[in-house]
Amino acid sequence: MSSVEDRGITVNDLFVPDPKSPILICGMPGSGYVGKLAVDHLVESFKGRKFAEAYSAEFPPHGNVDDGGVVRPIAGEYYLCETGQKHDLLIFTADAQPATTNGEYEMSEWVLERARMHGVKQVFSLAAFITGSFSADQRVFGAATSLELTRRMKEHGVKVMKEGAISGMNGIVTGMAVLYGMEGACLLGETSGYLVDPVASEAVLDSLSKLLTVKIDLGSIRDKAREAKQVIGQIQRMTEQENAGRPGPTGQPGYIG
Amino acid sequence: MSSVEDRGITVNDLFVPDPKSPILICGMPGSGYVGKLAVDHLVESFKGRKFAEAYSAEFPPHGNVDDGGVVRPIAGEYYLCETGQKHDLLIFTADAQPATTNGEYEMSEWVLERARMHGVKQVFSLAAFITGSFSADQRVFGAATSLELTRRMKEHGVKVMKEGAISGMNGIVTGMAVLYGMEGACLLGETSGYLVDPVASEAVLDSLSKLLTVKIDLGSIRDKAREAKQVIGQIQRMTEQENAGRPGPTGQPGYIG
Amino acid sequence: MSSVEDRGITVNDLFVPDPKSPILICGMPGSGYVGKLAVDHLVESFKGRKFAEAYSAEFPPHGNVDDGGVVRPIAGEYYLCETGQKHDLLIFTADAQPATTNGEYEMSEWVLERARMHGVKQVFSLAAFITGSFSADQRVFGAATSLELTRRMKEHGVKVMKEGAISGMNGIVTGMAVLYGMEGACLLGETSGYLVDPVASEAVLDSLSKLLTVKIDLGSIRDKAREAKQVIGQIQRMTEQENAGRPGPTGQPGYIG
Amino acid sequence: MSSVEDRGITVNDLFVPDPKSPILICGMPGSGYVGKLAVDHLVESFKGRKFAEAYSAEFPPHGNVDDGGVVRPIAGEYYLCETGQKHDLLIFTADAQPATTNGEYEMSEWVLERARMHGVKQVFSLAAFITGSFSADQRVFGAATSLELTRRMKEHGVKVMKEGAISGMNGIVTGMAVLYGMEGACLLGETSGYLVDPVASEAVLDSLSKLLTVKIDLGSIRDKAREAKQVIGQIQRMTEQENAGRPGPTGQPGYIG
Repeated sequence: MSSVEDRGITVNDLFVPDPKSPILICGMPGSGYVGKLAVDHLVESFKGRKFAEAYSAEFPPHGNVDDGGVVRPIAGEYYLCETGQKHDLLIFTADAQPATTNGEYEMSEWVLERARMHGVKQVFSLAAFITGSFSADQRVFGAATSLELTRRMKEHGVKVMKEGAISGMNGIVTGMAVLYGMEGACLLGETSGYLVDPVASEAVLDSLSKLLTVKIDLGSIRDKAREAKQVIGQIQRMTEQENAGRPGPTGQPGYIG
Repeated sequence: MSSVEDRGITVNDLFVPDPKSPILICGMPGSGYVGKLAVDHLVESFKGRKFAEAYSAEFPPHGNVDDGGVVRPIAGEYYLCETGQKHDLLIFTADAQPATTNGEYEMSEWVLERARMHGVKQVFSLAAFITGSFSADQRVFGAATSLELTRRMKEHGVKVMKEGAISGMNGIVTGMAVLYGMEGACLLGETSGYLVDPVASEAVLDSLSKLLTVKIDLGSIRDKAREAKQVIGQIQRMTEQENAGRPGPTGQPGYIG
Repeated sequence: MSSVEDRGITVNDLFVPDPKSPILICGMPGSGYVGKLAVDHLVESFKGRKFAEAYSAEFPPHGNVDDGGVVRPIAGEYYLCETGQKHDLLIFTADAQPATTNGEYEMSEWVLERARMHGVKQVFSLAAFITGSFSADQRVFGAATSLELTRRMKEHGVKVMKEGAISGMNGIVTGMAVLYGMEGACLLGETSGYLVDPVASEAVLDSLSKLLTVKIDLGSIRDKAREAKQVIGQIQRMTEQENAGRPGPTGQPGYIG
Repeated sequence: MSSVEDRGITVNDLFVPDPKSPILICGMPGSGYVGKLAVDHLVESFKGRKFAEAYSAEFPPHGNVDDGGVVRPIAGEYYLCETGQKHDLLIFTADAQPATTNGEYEMSEWVLERARMHGVKQVFSLAAFITGSFSADQRVFGAATSLELTRRMKEHGVKVMKEGAISGMNGIVTGMAVLYGMEGACLLGETSGYLVDPVASEAVLDSLSKLLTVKIDLGSIRDKAREAKQVIGQIQRMTEQENAGRPGPTGQPGYIG
């Protein structure tokens, strides 16, 4: 174990990755677990290997216990996914978002420093676009650090955001990418915000796959999405019956996270 | 891009300005956007060029998205305005005030350090004087680090404040100026606090122009002020009709921000 | 007095301990004072000697006054307990938990650094498992950094936790132990959360004694436990009389702290 | 102006004091302004000269404006009072208490470091003992870092506190004094907490004078105390008339600050 102190972050390096023209994909736990489920799927389907853990004094002050009774400190995790295609992927995720403003910036900057060290030129963060209502649509919203990238997003069916803010580490990592000589983009899957939503995760991964021209096997997340759609369908039918005769929900996006 | 770590602030220097006996003007977003509108007007009318961006881990943890879908991290911005007159202006503004006490002090001290580096001897911060009621008056209140400067303010029609506090970065930058070998002053435009108020911004710029003996073209902000006055006039007439027969608002200033 | 600055922690070293294959026992004040009472008992029964005090700018901002009018700053305390058995014990406790997330991590890391310095290989934190209801059971729950250790816990009658979080310094110290080359474990005594609970402390110490194969004299805490049981018994009888005919409490564990 | 960075504190040294066997007196703004009024009186009556100002990023984020419109940053102030008696006094006070836990500890440690540098062996902090009710008594409560000092307090009519906490910088400075090789004591003047209370300040100064064997001219604060007593007397008579026939206030001390 090598241990490095970096602006209040302790790093545990497990091995030194040697990725091929890598792209950073960042997904943090948040509403609907849209980004978290998506990056977990990438790690699983590309047999990603964890190469670094990051501990921060700004994470929530807990020890996590898994279902076997094993305790672990809250950590950020960096994975190498060798795709065998044009781009390897570096995946960053964590057990939780840092608990303070300062902690969110610190961890974001550490993630970007590491990515730069490994030659990353593009960063995609995967997040949720909270609408507050269930919808049959699976829209993916996007924003990026350059107009060229937003144009490419549009070509692949991503709805480009107009004014607003992307909160938390997803917004910071995307925006700050340019300060590290990278392009940044955020893909936000439309979701109600009420349920863990693999449907939104699948839609986000589908857009990501097209934008990166990296083929992603969506098999297992599609299965989870199908189950979730059935649950959501039931909820919608129940809601519709309740609301019959009343003005319906507008489907207007309300909050982005 | 040069990147400097300075007390938790990351600086992105765009060019090295060479201002002529410069004066620092500081305007931050806040109630009524009085200071922010005023400095934005200065940058626009003097064709200011941004020479430095400052990023802080104490800014709100967001990425800002503009109406073209372009994401940017929250930043402080330093502009050079070459006036062609006796004094050039250095303008500091930001997308947001820092989110913590510590962050407000840190950013203020960085702003003053930079100003000192460029030979600044006088600092003016532009802010709002919240009254909580609409008024036909466009009073400008002021406070300064020396009695001489408060005297000059009075001569130019500025009402000198009596006891109180100027909150946020405007108050810190003004008060701390003396620690950096500068004079500091704050001009606060009277405003209701309910609306974005270009009328107050215009009044503040008018006072600033007289105090600095720097001619400022107020054309475009005067247009915005005229529109705003019409809106406020309508609100006042509506309020008066409602209040007819009841004791009216006192117009007493209530809060300074 | 030697004074060391260590990440915002000021250390006052009283003597240099020379423990025999020591184990770290950590108990912090919290709900039911389960862990605090347990470590205080260990210090008392093994005639522990304080070898270091730690002061942190993240402790609550108070001075504590004892019943003789003597003021002391809030401190963390490290004791050496020479058991005359296979393992000596290092005990860490404090007047209060740090007041910030950052402070909890900082103090935990300092505690682990010191423990490593003295050759500690195993860390046990003693805590409370809050149920919200009074119960005749004296269950002890546990979690550890390895499956081997959870297995040994089970053999000694400890109920292994399934998913959840251990909050505060107890959770951080346990989880982070592995980063310092140690095994970590947490023993949580079942308690209502409403009263200081020496019954739970006794149960935790009994489990600890078996796991460590260190004999602990439980005499005086058993006396306190007996008194507490009588009080709890009275409360239960009163509650039962009140609840006669109503559905009773479920005894379901609700919160772990 | 010399400027020093010391743990986030910026110091402005005005002159280098050369005090004769000095004692540190610390009084911060708080309930009833008991400590603040008392130290202001000491500065005034001994013609104290300010020798250092301390600025902290943890002070409330404001600029203070005085009644002449002059803005000053919030500051801690260190005064030298040459008494011409056995002990000179170093006085520390501030415009406000720091806004964070960390800030309170940092400023307290800086104050103690400076005091040690000037050879201080004894620290007295002056504070309020909040009772929540008006009383004819002018009791002074006390706590100290040694039993000897609490004994001397009793001899001079100070009521020694029994268990509790002294909150804020007064408690930290007193408790931490021992870590800087000094004795610490806190004198707390009984006060209602509802009004600025020079009566309590006078009582505290009277006790301080006896404990230090330093003669303090209490003339001007006695005048203020007399006025305040008349106001309090009126309030009491009004309250008594209102409460006639109802159970009266108990005068039980409730909160110490």
